[in-house]
Amino acid sequence: MPITTPAGYRALAEPDVAGYLAGLPAIAARLGGAPERWRVREVGDGNLNLVFIVEGPDGAVCVKQALPYVRVAGEGWPMPLERAFFEHRATIAQAPRVPGLVPEMLHYDDELFLMVMERLDPHIIMRKGMIAGTFYPQFAGQIAEYMAQTLFGSSDLAMPAAAKKAQVALFCANTELCKITEDLIFTDPYMVHARNRWTSPQLDAAAAAIRADAPLKRAVSLLKLKFLTEAQALLHGDLHTGSIMVTDRDTRVIDPEFAFYGPMGFDVGKLLGNLLMSYFSQDGHERRPGERDAYRDWILATVDEVWNGFARRFVALWDGPRAGDAFPPALFEGADGAASLRLAQAAFLRALLTDALGYAGTAMIRRTLGFAHNADFETIADPDRRAGCERLNLELARELILQAPAIAGWSEVTARARELRARGPRFPG
Amino acid sequence: MPITTPAGYRALAEPDVAGYLAGLPAIAARLGGAPERWRVREVGDGNLNLVFIVEGPDGAVCVKQALPYVRVAGEGWPMPLERAFFEHRATIAQAPRVPGLVPEMLHYDDELFLMVMERLDPHIIMRKGMIAGTFYPQFAGQIAEYMAQTLFGSSDLAMPAAAKKAQVALFCANTELCKITEDLIFTDPYMVHARNRWTSPQLDAAAAAIRADAPLKRAVSLLKLKFLTEAQALLHGDLHTGSIMVTDRDTRVIDPEFAFYGPMGFDVGKLLGNLLMSYFSQDGHERRPGERDAYRDWILATVDEVWNGFARRFVALWDGPRAGDAFPPALFEGADGAASLRLAQAAFLRALLTDALGYAGTAMIRRTLGFAHNADFETIADPDRRAGCERLNLELARELILQAPAIAGWSEVTARARELRARGPRFPG
Repeated sequence: MPITTPAGYRALAEPDVAGYLAGLPAIAARLGGAPERWRVREVGDGNLNLVFIVEGPDGAVCVKQALPYVRVAGEGWPMPLERAFFEHRATIAQAPRVPGLVPEMLHYDDELFLMVMERLDPHIIMRKGMIAGTFYPQFAGQIAEYMAQTLFGSSDLAMPAAAKKAQVALFCANTELCKITEDLIFTDPYMVHARNRWTSPQLDAAAAAIRADAPLKRAVSLLKLKFLTEAQALLHGDLHTGSIMVTDRDTRVIDPEFAFYGPMGFDVGKLLGNLLMSYFSQDGHERRPGERDAYRDWILATVDEVWNGFARRFVALWDGPRAGDAFPPALFEGADGAASLRLAQAAFLRALLTDALGYAGTAMIRRTLGFAHNADFETIADPDRRAGCERLNLELARELILQAPAIAGWSEVTARARELRARGPRFPG
Repeated sequence: MPITTPAGYRALAEPDVAGYLAGLPAIAARLGGAPERWRVREVGDGNLNLVFIVEGPDGAVCVKQALPYVRVAGEGWPMPLERAFFEHRATIAQAPRVPGLVPEMLHYDDELFLMVMERLDPHIIMRKGMIAGTFYPQFAGQIAEYMAQTLFGSSDLAMPAAAKKAQVALFCANTELCKITEDLIFTDPYMVHARNRWTSPQLDAAAAAIRADAPLKRAVSLLKLKFLTEAQALLHGDLHTGSIMVTDRDTRVIDPEFAFYGPMGFDVGKLLGNLLMSYFSQDGHERRPGERDAYRDWILATVDEVWNGFARRFVALWDGPRAGDAFPPALFEGADGAASLRLAQAAFLRALLTDALGYAGTAMIRRTLGFAHNADFETIADPDRRAGCERLNLELARELILQAPAIAGWSEVTARARELRARGPRFPG
């Protein structure tokens, strides 16, 4: 059955792009010169969207257009065009708080479901850089700032209730992308499902053990419930190293099309879980044992720094001037009030930590046993070697989910990751 | 400044009502006879709305119309007409699950912000009945059923995520009534505020102690945050004995104009907190000591029965056929899965209990120290006697909020209520 699209929608091809942009004076001025001289390349990585890089004599832009289906799966898996609308709205909601940490949004076309953004150059997708073993010394501080600003800034701590509820209502409509998360992260990997895959036969027993693990499935179901109900903050919704573009100095978060109001720990956990996956995958990428030792140390140090920086900035924002209705300042006046607020902040961050640990674990399992895998593991050609990395990843993930409330902090997690790697795989399979 | 209202809106007066209803054939048929013979009486209790009872030869209806201001406060306190819309939408959302427990909705007029409903007769407001010491033997079971059906039925346990999110979005717009709760329940009573009042000077020291209680204000702020963020279920939003009409056989929940998606424990706690207030107020209503002993026993037994009945029905609904995305049945198959689901249900209800205990405490404090008091205490003419009742109420409320996670269940609360009353007031003041 062919997919029907709204009137006015057409998917652009490379030859259409310059003509389209020529009709947008601000964009045309940015590119400079005559449209015939603009160079257009389609560079979408094939998942969900068309992505064009357009270069003119004076500047360059990135054009991103939603397709009405999952590009990698073809028309058999329809996907709402409105995700471009939500990406646009999430970007303009976040940009004022994190102007240097997201691409500048230059234009949105609500008929074509198309955005024109700043072209990021010489940025690359962080996941690719990490597979190559590249250090990003500014990353921890910058992503901590991004998360603290966007999560705090969209919460009831920062926004008056009516304004926040209006945003919640807006993003409630992004149901189909939320459902992808609900199914692919929290459900499918824990049951027999045609969309699942894993390194087989090496991980067959491990996958079966996960499917048979009743306490794990109960804990994951509770994380799913929290994802469905807890409208804490406007999440990016897919914050991993594949949604981050970097240079050695700059960090930009892209692709917030999964944006919706959910639990803060989901963004934080997904990101840190992806760093842990990168850690375990390094054994598959080094050309001689130990070659990536320093890089592994950097990854784990980065996990700690991201959380610590995030927590510090989050509390600093909370301590600053703010318009939110939660924790009314009038109830926390004087020395007693200040001390009480410290306790409230510590309790809030402890709850956020627990959530993040659990969500990190779910991100690590879904990338090993579910539909969508990541290049960290996938680019390890030798299946035995890959399975060895993935097995450690599953083992830590399970511990994160089951033991989250008892884990003191991310330094305990990074120590445990190191310990598991030193010990070697033991998890079933 | 005069309040402006949307085109088409006018507040009806008694002489307008019959003519208006004559234009609605189904209503006219229900009333029977000629409109001139219909008897119209305005019976609104003066808080927020116009309420007309209309009686014809064959039947009767109730007409409820929103006014653009708080009636008791006059035009100086505007109040959105849209609350009638939300009341209507909440009623039609809930009615299919609780047809005999809410009034039948017969007509909604979106220009006049007016509803026509079944007239409830010989029902009276439960609070009045409880002040008079009337037993309601069917109440516990019926209100337990109402809460279990409406809270479970609107949650992610019962509804597919997309349908639930659409409802969340709809009720997100009911911000102004939510703000009344946010301010009057969770904020004002804990600070100096012109809207507050209490039995003075008897409770001056008690009110000051509450305002100075840092751990209490921290716990209340956490309950406020949960109220702002946790979109668990479509709440009634103002479920107390003043929103319930009863006979000795029938229970009907009215006035869901505060409806929105929030934490289930808010409805449960507000209701049970109001029963506890009725318990403490009985000393002010009995004509000789001990006259209401049996009634007091009934109230406390009812508190236990409401919770136990609610919890039992909630789990039964969860065990039945359901369409919700939370706790996917595929992850809880077999004997292991069933045992695991039992544990998940117990944990869910424990969390709900903790929330309800805290919200009960906030309801009890706001009715003693905040803007809106209740007739249970207000109708005790002797201020010393009233203050004695209120002081016990404040003492238990504080314990509920601070000790909620450690309280095993409502029977512990009812035992403590009995113990406090036997001991007599000791709380500051």
